[in-house]
Amino acid sequence: MTDDARHNAKMKRIKAVRDKIQSTKTREGGLLIVHTGNGKGKSTAAFGMVARCLGWGMKVGIVQFVKGTWETGERNFFARFPDTCLYRTMGEGFTWETQDRARDVAAARAGWEMACALMDDASIQFLLLDELNIALRYDQLPIADVVDRLRSRRSDLHIAVTGRHAKPELIEIADLVTEMTLVKHPYQAGMKAQRGVDY
Amino acid sequence: MTDDARHNAKMKRIKAVRDKIQSTKTREGGLLIVHTGNGKGKSTAAFGMVARCLGWGMKVGIVQFVKGTWETGERNFFARFPDTCLYRTMGEGFTWETQDRARDVAAARAGWEMACALMDDASIQFLLLDELNIALRYDQLPIADVVDRLRSRRSDLHIAVTGRHAKPELIEIADLVTEMTLVKHPYQAGMKAQRGVDY
Repeated sequence: MTDDARHNAKMKRIKAVRDKIQSTKTREGGLLIVHTGNGKGKSTAAFGMVARCLGWGMKVGIVQFVKGTWETGERNFFARFPDTCLYRTMGEGFTWETQDRARDVAAARAGWEMACALMDDASIQFLLLDELNIALRYDQLPIADVVDRLRSRRSDLHIAVTGRHAKPELIEIADLVTEMTLVKHPYQAGMKAQRGVDY
Repeated sequence: MTDDARHNAKMKRIKAVRDKIQSTKTREGGLLIVHTGNGKGKSTAAFGMVARCLGWGMKVGIVQFVKGTWETGERNFFARFPDTCLYRTMGEGFTWETQDRARDVAAARAGWEMACALMDDASIQFLLLDELNIALRYDQLPIADVVDRLRSRRSDLHIAVTGRHAKPELIEIADLVTEMTLVKHPYQAGMKAQRGVDY
């Protein structure tokens, strides 16, 4: 056998195994997705999913916790599609910016109320709760209530939750969890946050 | 001091430290970004960056290696902006689908030629080389040539490279590397790939 023939025979075997495994993957339905970890890409990947959904004609809701006080490329962009992408920035800034716990809690609660309203909107097929993990980490929202509400959502609704330090209770009920692990970050080399890449 | 006053004082201290660190982050310029690992979100986060760039009025190039033979939400979506987002699908499918190494190599070379052409297009500010890591892993392209070309790119051009098994030579020259780590995947629970989330 030539190298090419050997390669092709090997690929045929791989495909047979893959097809067999694939045939067992038949379930579908709304996923609870969590992006956490110290690396970059948590919100970014969720926004990639938003783009994918819009590409399939799905309607999307976005609630941004914490973030909201500064201009971002993602909001500039997705706000251009107000009929199919409901973009709600509900944050007041990081805790060290607001320096006001009562205000942080009020903003988190308002964000969560918005999230619940969008969960109840049957036209929405994908809901992004950006940085919800941060609001949960600082106990601005009761984790038990949030978990209950997420579990009892419509069975066809995908929800993506982002932010560092996802609570174990959330990981437990999630279907898809990715940890973005920092290998190398330009910040370490003195680079500042840049448009397009970071915000 | 009340709890709130203690919290606010602590946040002031955190902000002072953060501002001091932030003031040392002054450099900017084109980054070489790598998304790798077995977890989900590598291409997805790169597409999130594409959305961010478009939100800032930046022009984007996308070259998809490997992928290209099936319909995706991301292409459906970003192909709507042909003036600001040059979307080039150059792949012929996974190696076990094509079962033809010569064809895989030819597709990778054509993809790389397209990538070089877009690197030379001074109007482009962000270039996504989706799944280039796969073409490199299977030695469909010479890593030394690719590294040389990426290093000698324009200093203001961001390039994002995605795919599992990023080569050490690529990690070495990258500015920003995130490893997407699989914690939990719905595939393991018998769920199939779904629109919006997976493609």
